[in-house]
Amino acid sequence: MTHAYVHGYADREHERLHDQARTLSDLLHHDTHYPEGCTVLEAGCGTGAQTLELAARSPSARFTCVDISAASLAMASRRAAEAGLHNVEFQQADLRTLPFAAGSFDHVFVCFVLEHLADPSGTLRSLLRLLKPGGTLTAIEGDHGSVMFHPEHPAARHAIDCQVRLQARAGGNALIGRTLHPLLQAAGAQRVQVSPRFVYADASRPGWVDGFTRKTFTAMIEGVRDEAIAAGLSSPADFDAGVQALHRTAEADGVFCYTFFKAVAQAS
Amino acid sequence: MTHAYVHGYADREHERLHDQARTLSDLLHHDTHYPEGCTVLEAGCGTGAQTLELAARSPSARFTCVDISAASLAMASRRAAEAGLHNVEFQQADLRTLPFAAGSFDHVFVCFVLEHLADPSGTLRSLLRLLKPGGTLTAIEGDHGSVMFHPEHPAARHAIDCQVRLQARAGGNALIGRTLHPLLQAAGAQRVQVSPRFVYADASRPGWVDGFTRKTFTAMIEGVRDEAIAAGLSSPADFDAGVQALHRTAEADGVFCYTFFKAVAQAS
Repeated sequence: MTHAYVHGYADREHERLHDQARTLSDLLHHDTHYPEGCTVLEAGCGTGAQTLELAARSPSARFTCVDISAASLAMASRRAAEAGLHNVEFQQADLRTLPFAAGSFDHVFVCFVLEHLADPSGTLRSLLRLLKPGGTLTAIEGDHGSVMFHPEHPAARHAIDCQVRLQARAGGNALIGRTLHPLLQAAGAQRVQVSPRFVYADASRPGWVDGFTRKTFTAMIEGVRDEAIAAGLSSPADFDAGVQALHRTAEADGVFCYTFFKAVAQAS
Repeated sequence: MTHAYVHGYADREHERLHDQARTLSDLLHHDTHYPEGCTVLEAGCGTGAQTLELAARSPSARFTCVDISAASLAMASRRAAEAGLHNVEFQQADLRTLPFAAGSFDHVFVCFVLEHLADPSGTLRSLLRLLKPGGTLTAIEGDHGSVMFHPEHPAARHAIDCQVRLQARAGGNALIGRTLHPLLQAAGAQRVQVSPRFVYADASRPGWVDGFTRKTFTAMIEGVRDEAIAAGLSSPADFDAGVQALHRTAEADGVFCYTFFKAVAQAS
Protein backbone atom coordinates (compact mmCIF):
# COMPACT_ATOMS: atom_id res chain seq x y z
CA MET A 1 0.00 0.00 0.00
CA THR A 2 2.61 2.50 1.08
CA HIS A 3 4.64 2.36 -2.10
CA ALA A 4 1.52 2.47 -4.25
CA TYR A 5 0.25 5.77 -2.80
CA VAL A 6 0.23 7.78 -5.98
CA HIS A 7 0.78 11.19 -4.42
CA GLY A 8 3.96 10.11 -2.62
CA TYR A 9 5.21 10.97 0.84
CA ALA A 10 7.59 13.84 0.20
CA ASP A 11 7.55 17.05 2.23
CA ARG A 12 6.32 19.05 -0.72
CA GLU A 13 3.33 16.74 -0.97
CA HIS A 14 2.52 17.30 2.71
CA GLU A 15 2.64 21.02 2.13
CA ARG A 16 0.35 20.66 -0.87
CA LEU A 17 -2.17 18.62 1.10
CA HIS A 18 -2.32 21.21 3.86
CA ASP A 19 -2.63 24.10 1.39
CA GLN A 20 -5.47 22.20 -0.24
CA ALA A 21 -7.22 21.50 3.05
CA ARG A 22 -7.24 25.18 3.99
CA THR A 23 -8.52 26.38 0.62
CA LEU A 24 -11.17 23.73 0.38
CA SER A 25 -12.20 23.47 3.99
CA ASP A 26 -15.33 25.57 3.80
CA LEU A 27 -16.44 24.11 0.49
CA LEU A 28 -16.10 20.52 1.67
CA HIS A 29 -16.72 20.65 5.40
CA HIS A 30 -19.00 23.61 6.17
CA ASP A 31 -21.97 21.26 6.63
CA THR A 32 -20.22 18.62 8.73
CA HIS A 33 -20.75 19.18 12.46
CA TYR A 34 -20.52 16.31 14.93
CA PRO A 35 -22.40 16.90 18.21
CA GLU A 36 -20.91 16.97 21.67
CA GLY A 37 -19.70 13.66 23.01
CA CYS A 38 -20.15 11.59 19.88
CA THR A 39 -17.39 9.37 18.55
CA VAL A 40 -16.07 9.73 15.01
CA LEU A 41 -13.75 7.42 13.12
CA GLU A 42 -11.64 9.10 10.46
CA ALA A 43 -10.56 6.27 8.20
CA GLY A 44 -7.31 7.08 6.44
CA CYS A 45 -6.30 10.37 8.00
CA GLY A 46 -2.87 10.56 6.36
CA THR A 47 -0.90 13.51 7.69
CA GLY A 48 -4.05 15.01 9.19
CA ALA A 49 -4.91 17.57 6.51
CA GLN A 50 -8.66 16.96 6.91
CA THR A 51 -8.38 15.95 10.57
CA LEU A 52 -7.41 19.46 11.64
CA GLU A 53 -10.40 20.95 9.85
CA LEU A 54 -12.86 18.35 11.10
CA ALA A 55 -11.76 18.38 14.72
CA ALA A 56 -11.70 22.17 14.87
CA ARG A 57 -15.25 22.33 13.50
CA SER A 58 -16.57 19.80 16.03
CA PRO A 59 -14.53 20.57 19.16
CA SER A 60 -16.81 18.56 21.46
CA ALA A 61 -16.76 15.36 19.44
CA ARG A 62 -14.06 12.73 19.93
CA PHE A 63 -12.09 11.63 16.88
CA THR A 64 -10.24 8.38 16.35
CA CYS A 65 -8.05 8.79 13.28
CA VAL A 66 -6.40 5.79 11.71
CA ASP A 67 -3.89 5.39 8.92
CA ILE A 68 -1.65 2.65 7.61
CA SER A 69 1.46 4.86 7.63
CA ALA A 70 3.25 5.39 10.94
CA ALA A 71 5.19 8.30 9.46
CA SER A 72 2.01 10.05 8.35
CA LEU A 73 0.43 9.49 11.76
CA ALA A 74 3.47 10.98 13.49
CA MET A 75 3.12 14.12 11.41
CA ALA A 76 -0.66 14.24 11.89
CA SER A 77 -0.23 13.88 15.64
CA ARG A 78 2.36 16.66 15.76
CA ARG A 79 0.16 19.00 13.72
CA ALA A 80 -2.89 18.27 15.87
CA ALA A 81 -0.85 19.11 18.96
CA GLU A 82 0.44 22.32 17.35
CA ALA A 83 -3.16 23.26 16.54
CA GLY A 84 -4.09 22.76 20.18
CA LEU A 85 -6.59 20.00 19.42
CA HIS A 86 -7.36 17.76 22.40
CA ASN A 87 -10.21 15.76 20.90
CA VAL A 88 -8.18 13.58 18.52
CA GLU A 89 -6.49 10.20 18.99
CA PHE A 90 -4.32 8.58 16.35
CA GLN A 91 -3.95 4.85 15.79
CA GLN A 92 -2.06 2.83 13.18
CA ALA A 93 -4.26 0.38 11.31
CA ASP A 94 -5.03 -1.04 7.86
CA LEU A 95 -8.48 -0.05 6.60
CA ARG A 96 -9.01 -3.59 5.39
CA THR A 97 -8.53 -5.07 8.88
CA LEU A 98 -9.66 -2.36 11.31
CA PRO A 99 -9.39 -3.40 14.99
CA PHE A 100 -12.85 -2.16 16.02
CA ALA A 101 -15.99 -4.04 16.91
CA ALA A 102 -19.24 -3.55 14.98
CA GLY A 103 -21.19 -0.54 16.22
CA SER A 104 -18.13 1.17 17.72
CA PHE A 105 -18.69 4.68 16.37
CA ASP A 106 -21.42 7.27 16.05
CA HIS A 107 -20.02 8.46 12.74
CA VAL A 108 -17.41 7.55 10.15
CA PHE A 109 -15.58 10.01 7.94
CA VAL A 110 -13.45 9.07 4.95
CA CYS A 111 -11.94 11.69 2.63
CA PHE A 112 -9.60 11.27 -0.37
CA VAL A 113 -9.04 7.62 0.58
CA LEU A 114 -11.44 5.49 -1.46
CA GLU A 115 -9.72 6.74 -4.64
CA HIS A 116 -6.63 4.75 -3.59
CA LEU A 117 -8.35 1.45 -2.79
CA ALA A 118 -8.76 -1.56 -5.07
CA ASP A 119 -12.05 -2.49 -3.38
CA PRO A 120 -13.71 0.73 -2.20
CA SER A 121 -17.13 -0.88 -1.97
CA GLY A 122 -15.80 -3.62 0.33
CA THR A 123 -14.11 -1.04 2.52
CA LEU A 124 -17.31 1.00 2.69
CA ARG A 125 -19.21 -2.14 3.71
CA SER A 126 -16.72 -2.72 6.55
CA LEU A 127 -16.93 0.92 7.63
CA LEU A 128 -20.73 0.87 7.66
CA ARG A 129 -20.62 -2.09 10.08
CA LEU A 130 -18.70 0.09 12.55
CA LEU A 131 -21.61 2.52 12.84
CA LYS A 132 -24.03 2.62 15.74
CA PRO A 133 -27.73 2.70 14.72
CA GLY A 134 -28.59 6.08 13.20
CA GLY A 135 -24.96 7.01 12.65
CA THR A 136 -23.68 8.47 9.41
CA LEU A 137 -20.87 7.72 7.03
CA THR A 138 -19.48 10.71 5.16
CA ALA A 139 -17.29 10.16 2.11
CA ILE A 140 -15.58 12.85 0.03
CA GLU A 141 -13.72 12.23 -3.22
CA GLY A 142 -12.54 14.21 -6.22
CA ASP A 143 -12.96 13.18 -9.85
CA HIS A 144 -10.32 14.07 -12.41
CA GLY A 145 -12.90 13.63 -15.16
CA SER A 146 -14.45 16.86 -13.88
CA VAL A 147 -11.46 18.99 -14.82
CA MET A 148 -12.32 21.80 -17.22
CA PHE A 149 -10.08 24.67 -18.11
CA HIS A 150 -9.50 27.51 -20.50
CA PRO A 151 -7.47 27.76 -22.63
CA GLU A 152 -8.01 24.11 -23.55
CA HIS A 153 -4.74 22.30 -24.30
CA PRO A 154 -4.06 18.65 -25.20
CA ALA A 155 -0.76 18.64 -23.30
CA ALA A 156 -2.59 19.49 -20.08
CA ARG A 157 -5.03 16.64 -20.72
CA HIS A 158 -2.06 14.34 -21.32
CA ALA A 159 -0.39 15.23 -18.02
CA ILE A 160 -3.65 14.75 -16.11
CA ASP A 161 -4.18 11.44 -17.87
CA CYS A 162 -0.73 10.31 -16.65
CA GLN A 163 -1.92 10.86 -13.08
CA VAL A 164 -5.16 8.96 -13.75
CA ARG A 165 -3.25 6.04 -15.26
CA LEU A 166 -0.67 5.91 -12.46
CA GLN A 167 -3.46 5.84 -9.90
CA ALA A 168 -5.19 3.04 -11.83
CA ARG A 169 -1.92 1.07 -11.98
CA ALA A 170 -1.64 1.43 -8.21
CA GLY A 171 -5.10 -0.12 -7.89
CA GLY A 172 -7.00 3.14 -7.39
CA ASN A 173 -9.42 5.26 -9.37
CA ALA A 174 -8.97 9.00 -9.90
CA LEU A 175 -12.46 9.15 -11.45
CA ILE A 176 -14.22 7.78 -8.38
CA GLY A 177 -16.09 10.90 -7.24
CA ARG A 178 -19.07 10.54 -9.58
CA THR A 179 -19.55 6.92 -8.46
CA LEU A 180 -20.07 7.56 -4.73
CA HIS A 181 -23.83 7.04 -4.90
CA PRO A 182 -23.73 3.63 -6.64
CA LEU A 183 -20.65 2.61 -4.57
CA LEU A 184 -22.43 3.29 -1.30
CA GLN A 185 -25.61 1.64 -2.50
CA ALA A 186 -23.63 -1.45 -3.52
CA ALA A 187 -22.06 -1.46 -0.05
CA GLY A 188 -25.52 -1.64 1.50
CA ALA A 189 -25.76 1.98 2.67
CA GLN A 190 -29.19 3.58 3.10
CA ARG A 191 -30.44 7.09 2.40
CA VAL A 192 -27.37 8.01 0.34
CA GLN A 193 -27.29 11.72 -0.46
CA VAL A 194 -24.55 13.07 -2.71
CA SER A 195 -23.80 16.76 -3.14
CA PRO A 196 -21.25 17.98 -5.66
CA ARG A 197 -18.80 20.68 -4.58
CA PHE A 198 -17.70 22.74 -7.53
CA VAL A 199 -14.43 24.63 -7.55
CA TYR A 200 -14.41 27.52 -10.01
CA ALA A 201 -11.35 29.70 -10.42
CA ASP A 202 -11.05 32.74 -12.68
CA ALA A 203 -9.28 36.09 -12.35
CA SER A 204 -12.10 37.45 -10.17
CA ARG A 205 -11.24 34.80 -7.53
CA PRO A 206 -7.48 35.09 -7.01
CA GLY A 207 -7.57 33.01 -3.83
CA TRP A 208 -8.93 30.04 -5.74
CA VAL A 209 -6.55 30.56 -8.65
CA ASP A 210 -3.55 30.47 -6.34
CA GLY A 211 -4.85 28.07 -3.69
CA PHE A 212 -6.49 25.58 -5.99
CA THR A 213 -5.43 25.90 -9.64
CA ARG A 214 -1.77 26.39 -8.84
CA LYS A 215 -1.09 25.00 -5.38
CA THR A 216 -3.57 22.14 -5.28
CA PHE A 217 -4.33 20.71 -8.69
CA THR A 218 -1.34 21.72 -10.80
CA ALA A 219 1.00 20.94 -7.89
CA MET A 220 -0.53 17.47 -7.63
CA ILE A 221 0.05 16.81 -11.32
CA GLU A 222 3.60 18.15 -11.08
CA GLY A 223 4.11 15.76 -8.18
CA VAL A 224 3.79 12.66 -10.38
CA ARG A 225 6.16 13.94 -13.10
CA ASP A 226 9.10 11.66 -12.35
CA GLU A 227 6.93 8.63 -11.77
CA ALA A 228 5.02 9.20 -15.02
CA ILE A 229 8.27 9.49 -16.97
CA ALA A 230 9.80 6.45 -15.24
CA ALA A 231 6.66 4.46 -16.06
CA GLY A 232 6.99 5.35 -19.73
CA LEU A 233 3.68 7.23 -19.77
CA SER A 234 5.21 10.51 -20.93
CA SER A 235 8.35 12.13 -22.24
CA PRO A 236 9.78 14.85 -20.01
CA ALA A 237 8.99 17.46 -22.69
CA ASP A 238 5.38 16.38 -23.08
CA PHE A 239 4.79 16.31 -19.35
CA ASP A 240 6.38 19.69 -18.82
CA ALA A 241 4.30 21.15 -21.61
CA GLY A 242 1.22 19.86 -19.83
CA VAL A 243 2.21 21.45 -16.54
CA GLN A 244 2.93 24.69 -18.37
CA ALA A 245 -0.52 24.54 -19.99
CA LEU A 246 -2.10 24.05 -16.56
CA HIS A 247 -0.25 27.06 -15.19
CA ARG A 248 -1.50 28.97 -18.25
CA THR A 249 -5.09 28.48 -16.98
CA ALA A 250 -4.13 30.48 -13.87
CA GLU A 251 -3.36 33.61 -15.90
CA ALA A 252 -5.67 36.63 -16.16
CA ASP A 253 -7.83 35.21 -18.95
CA GLY A 254 -7.72 31.61 -17.71
CA VAL A 255 -10.38 29.48 -16.04
CA PHE A 256 -10.09 26.25 -14.06
CA CYS A 257 -12.89 24.01 -12.75
CA TYR A 258 -12.93 20.87 -10.63
CA THR A 259 -15.66 18.95 -8.84
CA PHE A 260 -15.55 17.09 -5.54
CA PHE A 261 -18.38 14.81 -4.45
CA LYS A 262 -19.55 14.51 -0.86
CA ALA A 263 -21.83 11.65 0.20
CA VAL A 264 -23.61 11.16 3.50
CA ALA A 265 -25.28 7.82 4.16
CA GLN A 266 -26.54 5.60 6.94
CA ALA A 267 -25.97 1.93 7.68
CA SER A 268 -29.62 0.95 8.03
CA MET B 1 -28.06 31.29 -39.52
CA THR B 2 -31.41 29.53 -39.49
CA HIS B 3 -30.25 26.38 -41.18
CA ALA B 4 -27.13 26.23 -39.07
CA TYR B 5 -29.03 26.11 -35.74
CA VAL B 6 -27.73 22.78 -34.51
CA HIS B 7 -30.72 21.79 -32.40
CA GLY B 8 -33.16 22.15 -35.29
CA TYR B 9 -36.65 23.56 -35.36
CA ALA B 10 -38.82 20.44 -35.08
CA ASP B 11 -41.76 20.16 -32.68
CA ARG B 12 -39.93 17.59 -30.57
CA GLU B 13 -37.10 20.06 -30.08
CA HIS B 14 -39.53 22.74 -28.87
CA GLU B 15 -40.94 20.26 -26.39
CA ARG B 16 -37.42 19.42 -25.20
CA LEU B 17 -36.53 23.08 -24.73
CA HIS B 18 -39.61 23.69 -22.63
CA ASP B 19 -39.07 20.55 -20.52
CA GLN B 20 -35.51 21.75 -19.97
CA ALA B 21 -36.61 25.25 -19.02
CA ARG B 22 -38.99 23.97 -16.34
CA THR B 23 -36.47 21.55 -14.81
CA LEU B 24 -33.67 24.04 -14.82
CA SER B 25 -35.56 27.20 -14.04
CA ASP B 26 -34.76 27.38 -10.34
CA LEU B 27 -31.15 26.36 -10.81
CA LEU B 28 -30.48 28.96 -13.49
CA HIS B 29 -32.86 31.82 -12.72
CA HIS B 30 -33.58 31.83 -8.98
CA ASP B 31 -31.24 34.78 -8.50
CA THR B 32 -32.43 36.87 -11.45
CA HIS B 33 -35.06 39.46 -10.46
CA TYR B 34 -35.58 42.63 -12.46
CA PRO B 35 -37.17 45.49 -10.51
CA GLU B 36 -40.44 47.19 -11.30
CA GLY B 37 -40.48 49.32 -14.39
CA CYS B 38 -37.07 48.47 -15.73
CA THR B 39 -36.54 47.41 -19.33
CA VAL B 40 -34.91 44.13 -20.23
CA LEU B 41 -33.71 42.95 -23.64
CA GLU B 42 -33.71 39.19 -24.12
CA ALA B 43 -31.36 38.62 -27.01
CA GLY B 44 -32.19 35.40 -28.85
CA CYS B 45 -35.39 34.27 -27.16
CA GLY B 46 -36.12 31.41 -29.57
CA THR B 47 -39.48 29.84 -28.80
CA GLY B 48 -39.58 31.57 -25.43
CA ALA B 49 -38.42 28.72 -23.18
CA GLN B 50 -36.45 31.09 -20.94
CA THR B 51 -38.73 34.07 -21.61
CA LEU B 52 -41.64 32.49 -19.76
CA GLU B 53 -39.47 31.82 -16.70
CA LEU B 54 -37.85 35.24 -16.74
CA ALA B 55 -41.02 37.26 -17.24
CA ALA B 56 -42.92 35.30 -14.60
CA ARG B 57 -40.16 35.92 -12.07
CA SER B 58 -40.07 39.67 -12.76
CA PRO B 59 -43.72 40.50 -13.46
CA SER B 60 -43.21 44.26 -13.11
CA ALA B 61 -40.30 44.54 -15.51
CA ARG B 62 -40.85 45.04 -19.25
CA PHE B 63 -39.21 42.56 -21.60
CA THR B 64 -38.29 43.04 -25.23
CA CYS B 65 -37.47 39.65 -26.70
CA VAL B 66 -35.82 39.39 -30.08
CA ASP B 67 -34.96 36.45 -32.31
CA ILE B 68 -33.96 35.96 -35.91
CA SER B 69 -36.62 33.33 -36.56
CA ALA B 70 -40.18 34.54 -37.25
CA ALA B 71 -41.51 31.02 -36.66
CA SER B 72 -39.86 30.80 -33.25
CA LEU B 73 -41.18 34.24 -32.33
CA ALA B 74 -44.71 33.24 -33.31
CA MET B 75 -44.52 30.25 -30.99
CA ALA B 76 -42.93 32.29 -28.19
CA SER B 77 -45.65 34.92 -28.51
CA ARG B 78 -48.40 32.30 -28.38
CA ARG B 79 -46.88 30.65 -25.29
CA ALA B 80 -46.46 33.97 -23.52
CA ALA B 81 -50.12 34.75 -24.18
CA GLU B 82 -51.15 31.28 -22.93
CA ALA B 83 -49.12 31.88 -19.78
CA GLY B 84 -50.97 35.15 -19.24
CA LEU B 85 -47.83 37.27 -19.48
CA HIS B 86 -48.49 40.91 -20.32
CA ASN B 87 -44.98 42.27 -19.79
CA VAL B 88 -43.35 40.83 -22.90
CA GLU B 89 -42.98 42.17 -26.45
CA PHE B 90 -41.50 40.19 -29.30
CA GLN B 91 -39.55 41.60 -32.22
CA GLN B 92 -37.75 39.96 -35.13
CA ALA B 93 -34.11 40.99 -35.41
CA ASP B 94 -30.61 39.71 -36.09
CA LEU B 95 -28.35 39.90 -33.02
CA ARG B 96 -25.55 41.19 -35.23
CA THR B 97 -27.59 44.20 -36.38
CA LEU B 98 -29.98 45.01 -33.53
CA PRO B 99 -32.24 48.01 -34.20
CA PHE B 100 -31.73 49.70 -30.83
CA ALA B 101 -29.83 52.82 -29.85
CA ALA B 102 -27.00 52.72 -27.33
CA GLY B 103 -28.24 52.89 -23.75
CA SER B 104 -31.72 51.59 -24.62
CA PHE B 105 -32.12 49.02 -21.85
CA ASP B 106 -31.65 48.69 -18.12
CA HIS B 107 -30.61 45.06 -18.47
CA VAL B 108 -29.73 42.51 -21.12
CA PHE B 109 -30.28 38.77 -20.84
CA VAL B 110 -28.84 36.17 -23.20
CA CYS B 111 -29.22 32.44 -22.58
CA PHE B 112 -28.14 29.47 -24.73
CA VAL B 113 -27.40 31.81 -27.61
CA LEU B 114 -23.68 32.65 -27.54
CA GLU B 115 -22.92 28.94 -28.09
CA HIS B 116 -24.35 29.29 -31.62
CA LEU B 117 -22.47 32.43 -32.67
CA ALA B 118 -19.25 32.65 -34.63
CA ASP B 119 -18.26 35.87 -32.84
CA PRO B 120 -19.72 35.73 -29.33
CA SER B 121 -17.34 38.37 -28.02
CA GLY B 122 -18.38 40.82 -30.74
CA THR B 123 -22.04 40.20 -29.99
CA LEU B 124 -21.42 40.73 -26.29
CA ARG B 125 -19.68 44.01 -27.06
CA SER B 126 -22.72 45.15 -29.05
CA LEU B 127 -25.10 44.08 -26.29
CA LEU B 128 -23.07 45.89 -23.63
CA ARG B 129 -23.47 49.11 -25.63
CA LEU B 130 -27.24 48.80 -25.30
CA LEU B 131 -27.05 49.05 -21.51
CA LYS B 132 -27.87 52.16 -19.52
CA PRO B 133 -25.24 53.14 -16.93
CA GLY B 134 -25.30 50.68 -14.03
CA GLY B 135 -27.24 48.08 -15.98
CA THR B 136 -26.31 44.43 -16.07
CA LEU B 137 -25.77 41.85 -18.75
CA THR B 138 -26.58 38.27 -17.75
CA ALA B 139 -25.32 35.40 -19.90
CA ILE B 140 -26.00 31.70 -19.35
CA GLU B 141 -24.39 28.88 -21.31
CA GLY B 142 -23.80 25.16 -20.96
CA ASP B 143 -20.53 23.36 -21.61
CA HIS B 144 -20.53 19.84 -23.01
CA GLY B 145 -17.01 19.33 -21.67
CA SER B 146 -18.61 19.26 -18.22
CA VAL B 147 -20.51 16.04 -18.91
CA MET B 148 -19.67 13.26 -16.48
CA PHE B 149 -21.58 10.05 -16.11
CA HIS B 150 -21.52 6.57 -14.69
CA PRO B 151 -21.18 3.97 -16.09
CA GLU B 152 -18.55 5.55 -18.32
CA HIS B 153 -18.89 4.46 -21.97
CA PRO B 154 -16.89 5.46 -25.07
CA ALA B 155 -19.98 5.27 -27.29
CA ALA B 156 -21.70 7.92 -25.18
CA ARG B 157 -18.63 10.15 -25.50
CA HIS B 158 -18.68 9.58 -29.26
CA ALA B 159 -22.31 10.63 -29.60
CA ILE B 160 -21.73 13.76 -27.51
CA ASP B 161 -18.65 14.54 -29.58
CA CYS B 162 -20.80 14.40 -32.73
CA GLN B 163 -22.97 17.16 -31.28
CA VAL B 164 -19.90 19.22 -30.35
CA ARG B 165 -18.47 18.84 -33.85
CA LEU B 166 -21.76 19.66 -35.59
CA GLN B 167 -22.06 22.81 -33.50
CA ALA B 168 -18.48 23.76 -34.37
CA ARG B 169 -19.17 23.19 -38.08
CA ALA B 170 -22.16 25.52 -37.77
CA GLY B 171 -19.85 28.19 -36.38
CA GLY B 172 -20.71 27.68 -32.72
CA ASN B 173 -19.02 26.28 -29.64
CA ALA B 174 -20.64 23.69 -27.38
CA LEU B 175 -17.78 24.16 -24.90
CA ILE B 176 -18.39 27.87 -24.40
CA GLY B 177 -19.66 27.86 -20.80
CA ARG B 178 -16.26 27.83 -19.11
CA THR B 179 -15.12 30.78 -21.23
CA LEU B 180 -17.79 33.29 -20.18
CA HIS B 181 -15.44 35.21 -17.90
CA PRO B 182 -12.67 35.77 -20.47
CA LEU B 183 -15.27 36.33 -23.23
CA LEU B 184 -16.97 39.10 -21.29
CA GLN B 185 -13.67 40.63 -20.27
CA ALA B 186 -12.55 40.62 -23.90
CA ALA B 187 -15.83 42.34 -24.81
CA GLY B 188 -15.03 45.14 -22.37
CA ALA B 189 -17.41 44.14 -19.59
CA GLN B 190 -16.66 45.20 -16.02
CA ARG B 191 -17.16 43.39 -12.70
CA VAL B 192 -17.74 40.03 -14.36
CA GLN B 193 -18.95 37.44 -11.87
CA VAL B 194 -19.44 33.86 -13.00
CA SER B 195 -21.24 31.23 -10.97
CA PRO B 196 -21.38 27.60 -12.10
CA ARG B 197 -24.72 25.78 -11.87
CA PHE B 198 -24.13 22.08 -11.40
CA VAL B 199 -26.74 19.51 -12.38
CA TYR B 200 -26.36 16.23 -10.51
CA ALA B 201 -28.72 13.32 -11.17
CA ASP B 202 -28.66 9.96 -9.41
CA ALA B 203 -31.42 7.57 -8.29
CA SER B 204 -32.12 9.69 -5.21
CA ARG B 205 -33.19 12.57 -7.51
CA PRO B 206 -35.69 11.01 -9.94
CA GLY B 207 -36.93 14.41 -11.13
CA TRP B 208 -33.48 15.31 -12.37
CA VAL B 209 -32.91 11.86 -13.89
CA ASP B 210 -36.09 12.12 -15.91
CA GLY B 211 -36.15 15.89 -16.50
CA PHE B 212 -32.49 16.37 -17.25
CA THR B 213 -30.60 13.15 -18.00
CA ARG B 214 -33.34 11.73 -20.22
CA LYS B 215 -35.50 14.60 -21.45
CA THR B 216 -32.93 17.37 -21.67
CA PHE B 217 -29.43 16.09 -22.37
CA THR B 218 -29.98 12.66 -23.93
CA ALA B 219 -32.92 14.03 -25.94
CA MET B 220 -30.67 16.80 -27.26
CA ILE B 221 -28.04 14.28 -28.39
CA GLU B 222 -30.71 12.06 -29.97
CA GLY B 223 -31.93 15.15 -31.79
CA VAL B 224 -28.73 15.42 -33.89
CA ARG B 225 -28.66 11.71 -34.84
CA ASP B 226 -29.66 12.08 -38.47
CA GLU B 227 -27.52 15.14 -39.03
CA ALA B 228 -24.48 13.44 -37.49
CA ILE B 229 -24.94 10.39 -39.72
CA ALA B 230 -25.56 12.52 -42.82
CA ALA B 231 -22.40 14.50 -42.05
CA GLY B 232 -20.37 11.28 -41.88
CA LEU B 233 -19.50 11.81 -38.22
CA SER B 234 -21.00 8.50 -37.09
CA SER B 235 -22.48 5.25 -38.27
CA PRO B 236 -26.09 4.69 -37.21
CA ALA B 237 -25.01 1.77 -34.99
CA ASP B 238 -22.31 3.77 -33.21
CA PHE B 239 -24.61 6.70 -32.61
CA ASP B 240 -27.43 4.52 -31.33
CA ALA B 241 -25.02 2.73 -29.00
CA GLY B 242 -24.05 6.12 -27.62
CA VAL B 243 -27.64 7.12 -26.98
CA GLN B 244 -28.26 3.75 -25.34
CA ALA B 245 -25.21 4.32 -23.10
CA LEU B 246 -26.58 7.73 -22.12
CA HIS B 247 -29.93 6.19 -21.22
CA ARG B 248 -28.00 3.61 -19.18
CA THR B 249 -26.78 6.44 -16.90
CA ALA B 250 -30.43 7.11 -15.98
CA GLU B 251 -30.86 3.64 -14.46
CA ALA B 252 -30.88 2.92 -10.72
CA ASP B 253 -27.08 2.74 -10.36
CA GLY B 254 -26.33 5.49 -12.88
CA VAL B 255 -25.13 9.05 -12.39
CA PHE B 256 -25.17 12.04 -14.74
CA CYS B 257 -23.58 15.47 -14.23
CA TYR B 258 -23.59 18.67 -16.27
CA THR B 259 -22.52 22.24 -15.57
CA PHE B 260 -24.04 25.49 -16.75
CA PHE B 261 -22.26 28.80 -16.27
CA LYS B 262 -24.04 32.03 -15.42
CA ALA B 263 -22.27 35.37 -15.74
CA VAL B 264 -23.43 38.80 -14.62
CA ALA B 265 -21.45 41.83 -15.74
CA GLN B 266 -21.71 45.57 -16.24
CA ALA B 267 -20.82 47.79 -19.16
CA SER B 268 -18.71 50.26 -17.23
